[in-house]
Amino acid sequence: MTIQKPSIPKGTRDFSPIEMMRRGYIFNTIKNIFEKHGYMPLETPSMENLSTLLGKYGEEGDKLLFKVLNSGDFLKKLSLQDVEAGNSNGVSAKICEKGLRYDLTVPFARYVVQHQNEIVFPFKRYQIQPVWRADRPQKGRYREFYQCDVDVVGSNSLLNEVELVQIVAEVFADLCINVTLKINNRKILYGISESIGYADKMMDITVAIDKLDKIGIEAVNEELLSKGIDSSAIAKLQPILTLQGDNSEKLVQIKKIISGSETGLKGVAEIETILEYVKALGVNLDIELDLSLARGLNYYTGAIFEVKAKDYAIGSICGGGRYDDLTGIFGLSGVSGVGISFGADRIYDVLLNLNLFPEDTDITTKALFVNFGGKEEIAALRLLIKMRMEGVSAEIYPDAVKMKKQMEYANKRGIPYVVIIGENELQTRIAAVKDMRSGEQWSVKFEVLASVLG
Amino acid sequence: MTIQKPSIPKGTRDFSPIEMMRRGYIFNTIKNIFEKHGYMPLETPSMENLSTLLGKYGEEGDKLLFKVLNSGDFLKKLSLQDVEAGNSNGVSAKICEKGLRYDLTVPFARYVVQHQNEIVFPFKRYQIQPVWRADRPQKGRYREFYQCDVDVVGSNSLLNEVELVQIVAEVFADLCINVTLKINNRKILYGISESIGYADKMMDITVAIDKLDKIGIEAVNEELLSKGIDSSAIAKLQPILTLQGDNSEKLVQIKKIISGSETGLKGVAEIETILEYVKALGVNLDIELDLSLARGLNYYTGAIFEVKAKDYAIGSICGGGRYDDLTGIFGLSGVSGVGISFGADRIYDVLLNLNLFPEDTDITTKALFVNFGGKEEIAALRLLIKMRMEGVSAEIYPDAVKMKKQMEYANKRGIPYVVIIGENELQTRIAAVKDMRSGEQWSVKFEVLASVLG
Repeated sequence: MTIQKPSIPKGTRDFSPIEMMRRGYIFNTIKNIFEKHGYMPLETPSMENLSTLLGKYGEEGDKLLFKVLNSGDFLKKLSLQDVEAGNSNGVSAKICEKGLRYDLTVPFARYVVQHQNEIVFPFKRYQIQPVWRADRPQKGRYREFYQCDVDVVGSNSLLNEVELVQIVAEVFADLCINVTLKINNRKILYGISESIGYADKMMDITVAIDKLDKIGIEAVNEELLSKGIDSSAIAKLQPILTLQGDNSEKLVQIKKIISGSETGLKGVAEIETILEYVKALGVNLDIELDLSLARGLNYYTGAIFEVKAKDYAIGSICGGGRYDDLTGIFGLSGVSGVGISFGADRIYDVLLNLNLFPEDTDITTKALFVNFGGKEEIAALRLLIKMRMEGVSAEIYPDAVKMKKQMEYANKRGIPYVVIIGENELQTRIAAVKDMRSGEQWSVKFEVLASVLG
Repeated sequence: MTIQKPSIPKGTRDFSPIEMMRRGYIFNTIKNIFEKHGYMPLETPSMENLSTLLGKYGEEGDKLLFKVLNSGDFLKKLSLQDVEAGNSNGVSAKICEKGLRYDLTVPFARYVVQHQNEIVFPFKRYQIQPVWRADRPQKGRYREFYQCDVDVVGSNSLLNEVELVQIVAEVFADLCINVTLKINNRKILYGISESIGYADKMMDITVAIDKLDKIGIEAVNEELLSKGIDSSAIAKLQPILTLQGDNSEKLVQIKKIISGSETGLKGVAEIETILEYVKALGVNLDIELDLSLARGLNYYTGAIFEVKAKDYAIGSICGGGRYDDLTGIFGLSGVSGVGISFGADRIYDVLLNLNLFPEDTDITTKALFVNFGGKEEIAALRLLIKMRMEGVSAEIYPDAVKMKKQMEYANKRGIPYVVIIGENELQTRIAAVKDMRSGEQWSVKFEVLASVLG
C-alpha cells in the first residue's frame, strides 16, 4: 500500500476538540432555548432524492448541489451519445439519483408533507445539521457547514413571530453578544412599489433601496431610472429613502406614503402588532425597522428578520421570516410558517474575536491523577471512580512514567488540577493538589477531593 | 413545477421528534460518561478524499462507498473510451474525487496523522457522527447510520482497556440494560494456532471455533480438516473446544495448552491484568472470556471486546479492541490505540423493546397555556417568561381558538399540564392547572407555577 500524505477535500473542516467544545457551547445554548419554548428536534437524511432538491434553489443552486453517484453499475443507464453530447447535466441525471442536502428548509418542507398525517399542527421544530454546497471555498465560506433552524408551521398567528423575537433576545443574551434585530415586512415592500405605480418591479426597487448605505441616494435614484422607473415615481419614493426617526416615527411616515396600498398597510399593522407584544412583554432587545431588508424576497411573504452583532463586523448572524406556502412545492398548500436560522460559524467567530467563550468551555478534564504505579495507582483509580460518580471529569495518566512527562500532559491538555498520591499521601489519605494555572499547591483529604475540585 | 409525492432514498431515515429525543437520551448518556473519563469530542468532514477511503475496507468495502460526483464540468476528464470499456470503477475514478465516510476509524487515523504535531498524546477522543454505506437495505441495516466511537491512541497501557471496560459498565448501568461483556485477545488466538502448528491458519481456525455453538464439535472438526489442518493438530485443539468453567479456570487451562507460545501467553497475561484491575476496582459487570470472539481479526492486535444485551436478542450492541498500527496506512507508525464503538440503533431497539426509556424522555413541553386572547393572553405570556427563566419548557397555543382544539393539541403532543388563565383566574391570580394524564385539576398561585410544574 502506498503511503499518502493525508488531507481533506477543500472547503471542508476537521473540528478539533477545542473547536468542538466551543461549538457545543453555542449549540447547547441555542437548543436549550428552543426546547424551553416547546420546539422539538428533527433530523432528516443527509441524502435526498435529487427530484426533491432540484429546482428549489434556482439555476445557480442546482449547480451547487453535490450529487451522489448511483451505487453498483451506474454506467448501464448511460449511453455513449449522452457522453458525446458533453452535457454534464444530462449525464449526471442518468448516473445520480441522490444529492446532499443544500439547506434544512426544503428537507423540512418535504418532511412535513410526507408525514402530514402524523404531525400535530402547529408543528414547532428545530433542526441542527450540516448542509453541503459546491460553492467556491473562501474565507468564512465552506462546502460543509451546520445550519441551525427553528420553525413553526401550520399557524398564521403573529405570536409565533413574537416568540422568535424572544428566542433571538434570549440566545444572544445567554451568549453575551450585543445585537440589533432588524425587522421588515415583505408586504410593506410590496406596498411601497404599489404606491409608486410599480408593483411589478418590487424586486428591482428593493435591490436599489438596499444599496442606499453603500452608494448614496443619487446612485440609488440612477439605478431606479435605469430599471425603467419613471422620475415621478422616483420622486414619490424619496421620503422612503430619507426616512428618519425611531420605529414608531418611521411607521407613521410609511403609513402616509403607502396609504393607498391595502397590502402595505397590512404589513405595517403586522410590524406594529409584533412591536406592541415585544414591548408589553419587556423583551430586552434592540429592534430596528429597516426597509432595505429583503433576504430571499421570492420566498418570504410577511415578517423578515436579520440579526447583526453590534461589536463585531461580520454580516448577519441570524435571519429568517414568514413564508406562506413552503410546502406547496410538495403538494400541500395552505400551510403558513415562520422561522429563523442561526449562523453557527459566524457566531463562533464573534465569540472568539470578542473573547466571549466562557473560561471553562475548553476544559474537558478537571483533574489529572499522577500515575505512580502499584498501590498508589489503585488508590488513585478508586478515587477517580468516586470523583466521576459525583460528576467530576477526571483521569489518570495511563503509565507510571516520569512525573515531568505527566505534568506536561496536564499542561498541554489544559487540565486545571493535578492530583498527586504518592506513598506519603496514601498513608495520610491526604492528596497533594496542584493548581496548574496559579502554581499553588494544597493538601486535600481524599474524602473531599470531589467536592473541592468539582 | 410538477408536484412530486415526497420520499427519501431507500435505506435512509427521518428521525421524528420522539425518535430524536430518545436518541438524544442515548447519545447524552454516552457522551456524559465519555467526558467524565476525559475523552474529548472530535468531528471530521462527511466527505473525505476517495484516496483516503479506498483500499481501507477491502474490496467489498470499496464497492460500498458512496462517491460524490465532481462539481462543475465533471465530463471533461472522461473519454468516450472510458465509457465504452464499461468499467464502472475506471469511470468513477475519473469523475469522483470525494466519497462519504464509511466509518469513523479511518477518518480518525487520517486526522491523527494530519494533526500529529498539534495533538497531545495519549489522545483520548470520542466521535458521534453518521456514516454511509451503499449496502442493500434490510431490517436494521441502513445506508446512513450513526457511529459512536471512543478511542485512545498513543498509549500501550492496559489501563486504557480497563477504562473502556469501566465505560461499558457505566453506560449500560445508566441505560439500565443488563449486559455481558465478552472479552478475548488476538494474541491468544495466535497462540492457539501456533501451539497446534498452524500459526498461518489462525483465521481459518478462529472462524471454525466461532461456529461451535451453532454447528457442534464434530462439524467444527470436519471444517478444520477441510481447511488442511491435520488430525493430530485437531486432536490438540479439543481441550479448547470443550473449555469449561469460569474465567480463571479457563485461563488456567488455556495456559497449559498454549504453554509453548510466547505470544499466546502474553495474551493471557494481558487478560489476567485487565481482570485483576476490574476486580480491584469493583467494576460491576458480567465479563466472560470467549475464545471464539474474533471481530475484525485483521485489524485488532490485542484485547477484543463485544457487548451483548442479556434480556433481548439482537447481536452485539458495542464492540472494539486494541489495534497497534492504525495510523500506519497514513505514514505514522508506532501509534497503538484501543477503542470501542456503541451501536446506537441497536441500543435504541433494546431500550424500546424492553420499555426502558425513562418516562420523561418523550416530554418536550411541560405545560401548555391555553390562549384566551386579550389581557389573559398577555398575562399568560408574562408567566411563560418566568417559567422558562426557571428552566421549565412551556408554550402557549398561538391562537385564541376553541378550548377543545387547544386541549387536543396538548393531548396529541403529550404535554402533561395545561394551564388555564381566564378572566377569573387573572383576577385571583390563581391558575387552573389540568393534569392531562390523570385528568385531575388543581388551583395554583401564579407565583408558584414554575416550581409546581417544574
